[in-house]
Amino acid sequence: MTVKFRKLALVGIGLIGSSIALAARRQGLADVIAISTRRSDTLEEARELNLGDAYTLDPAEAVRGADLVILATPVGAYEAVMKAIAPALEPGAILSDVGSVKRHVVKVVEPLVPEGVHFIPGHPLAGTEHSGPSAGFAELFANRWCVLTPGPQVDKAAVEKLAAFWRAMGSNVETMDADHHDMVLAITSHVPHLVAYNIVGTVADLEQATQSEVIKFSASGFRDFTRIAASDPVMWRDVFLTNRDAVLEMLGRFLEDLSVLQRAVRVGDGPALEELFTRTRAVRRSIIDAGQETAAPDFGRPHEAPPVPEVATFVREHGGGDDA
Amino acid sequence: MTVKFRKLALVGIGLIGSSIALAARRQGLADVIAISTRRSDTLEEARELNLGDAYTLDPAEAVRGADLVILATPVGAYEAVMKAIAPALEPGAILSDVGSVKRHVVKVVEPLVPEGVHFIPGHPLAGTEHSGPSAGFAELFANRWCVLTPGPQVDKAAVEKLAAFWRAMGSNVETMDADHHDMVLAITSHVPHLVAYNIVGTVADLEQATQSEVIKFSASGFRDFTRIAASDPVMWRDVFLTNRDAVLEMLGRFLEDLSVLQRAVRVGDGPALEELFTRTRAVRRSIIDAGQETAAPDFGRPHEAPPVPEVATFVREHGGGDDA
Repeated sequence: MTVKFRKLALVGIGLIGSSIALAARRQGLADVIAISTRRSDTLEEARELNLGDAYTLDPAEAVRGADLVILATPVGAYEAVMKAIAPALEPGAILSDVGSVKRHVVKVVEPLVPEGVHFIPGHPLAGTEHSGPSAGFAELFANRWCVLTPGPQVDKAAVEKLAAFWRAMGSNVETMDADHHDMVLAITSHVPHLVAYNIVGTVADLEQATQSEVIKFSASGFRDFTRIAASDPVMWRDVFLTNRDAVLEMLGRFLEDLSVLQRAVRVGDGPALEELFTRTRAVRRSIIDAGQETAAPDFGRPHEAPPVPEVATFVREHGGGDDA
Repeated sequence: MTVKFRKLALVGIGLIGSSIALAARRQGLADVIAISTRRSDTLEEARELNLGDAYTLDPAEAVRGADLVILATPVGAYEAVMKAIAPALEPGAILSDVGSVKRHVVKVVEPLVPEGVHFIPGHPLAGTEHSGPSAGFAELFANRWCVLTPGPQVDKAAVEKLAAFWRAMGSNVETMDADHHDMVLAITSHVPHLVAYNIVGTVADLEQATQSEVIKFSASGFRDFTRIAASDPVMWRDVFLTNRDAVLEMLGRFLEDLSVLQRAVRVGDGPALEELFTRTRAVRRSIIDAGQETAAPDFGRPHEAPPVPEVATFVREHGGGDDA
């Protein structure tokens, strides 16, 4: 299905908003891309990066005449944004978002959606640890999932049109209930981020000399946690403020399991440890088989070879090229 | 300093042992490399990979005449290996290892070291989630740290010779006390692995339908944990059996902090969450600045672009090449 919108309005232009702008333009999914954001310096940055066709600090101006509006601000800003844009939304327009929680978004946004506007909450499961308009890239959504959580009353053709938009940017699309989304994301994304933030915080609280050593020796495991613990602080604050119940439920399961593991360490239960450590390997294999992870060791991080003593040997083995 | 050994004996030929074999040969650090391992199929695999010059199931035969012996089996096998090789160790030889814990190694190995042999425990802080002889590569130690924990009575020249061996393979070398090593590694490596194994275990215990969704949506955070939770089970069992006290101490700190964070989520303390999430970003920057991590987003994982509708545009932007 070929999909094309007359005007795409992006309210918020961080990592996700800017990646949508770049991907939509690259794939030719909108005649006009209008960008709105709260801070003038961010708007200027978006303009310098040439992310869209029109730039404004007024979200109502951005959404006027748009047949696709996507909210891409932190979730905590949705209510204020909706109050500002509701009078300017066109009947027949699709209104969506990219927030990491969905039940809260429905609760806050739905009452403010004007008659005739198709509200379809969305969540692209994609991102990096970088933030802001310059962090975006057109390939971000390729082979990643985008979850849509339309209410039962929403127009099916509008849902299919939005799904086609995401598929055109490279995503796989799945629809589900908002509550189910929040529960699955709690264990897939929210608790992992909480745990990563927590262990990095534990290290940040160590005395200075020890902390320096942890940083130096971080390749032995710790650094894997620091990537997601470097994600956007405001976005993640809002996730935990708005998906509390599911996060506390999944964190509870994690802590129960950790108590059992802590006890196995304390009593020296080797067979129990080995059994768990063997079982967990299969999960990674499943993720690689599902095409959601690289099979390359160490995430494919670069490993540079030290120079070898003799030049002749080096040229023979490496063709004299730069293998960094 | 140029360093060269007559005979390097590797007892154990997994990821680390095979990487030492490849790096030592590439850098010309030994005239002969002898390889010993417990299982005949592993020994055959090492032989087919051409990792050394001599292969034997008898560790005593491997170490006979060696001036550098490195134990590279799981730590739990050290006592049996030492009893087998002690009579064959040459006076003047350096005996080292690559185990992830050091106090326990000293306790087990030191009483079995013959007079005149220089025992210098070692730990290269390098690895991937892959295991076995075929997982090794010569670049594994480049720009990684290798920690040596020689006792106070050990010959300084022997320590310097072993340090030069590791530096020639690309490592940075640091010496410290065995207890201090175990404490720093508990928080840098052991607790992160325990937490990663635990959260992957929590997912593995979910009902099948939910587990499938977690795997599908794992790019939203979870998959970062699965890498270290796919590491060698026997090696990691032995780590937790032999560094119990330091692991429980650091796990205790982690759990205290997690209780505070859990409460912040429960009461909806936005400022506390945002403060922690901001502070943790700095730690990752320090690791990147220290050259221990890639600055590329998403660990530099590949992102493939979806095809764009028009061939002409694709060729213009990508030169028609394969960008996978």
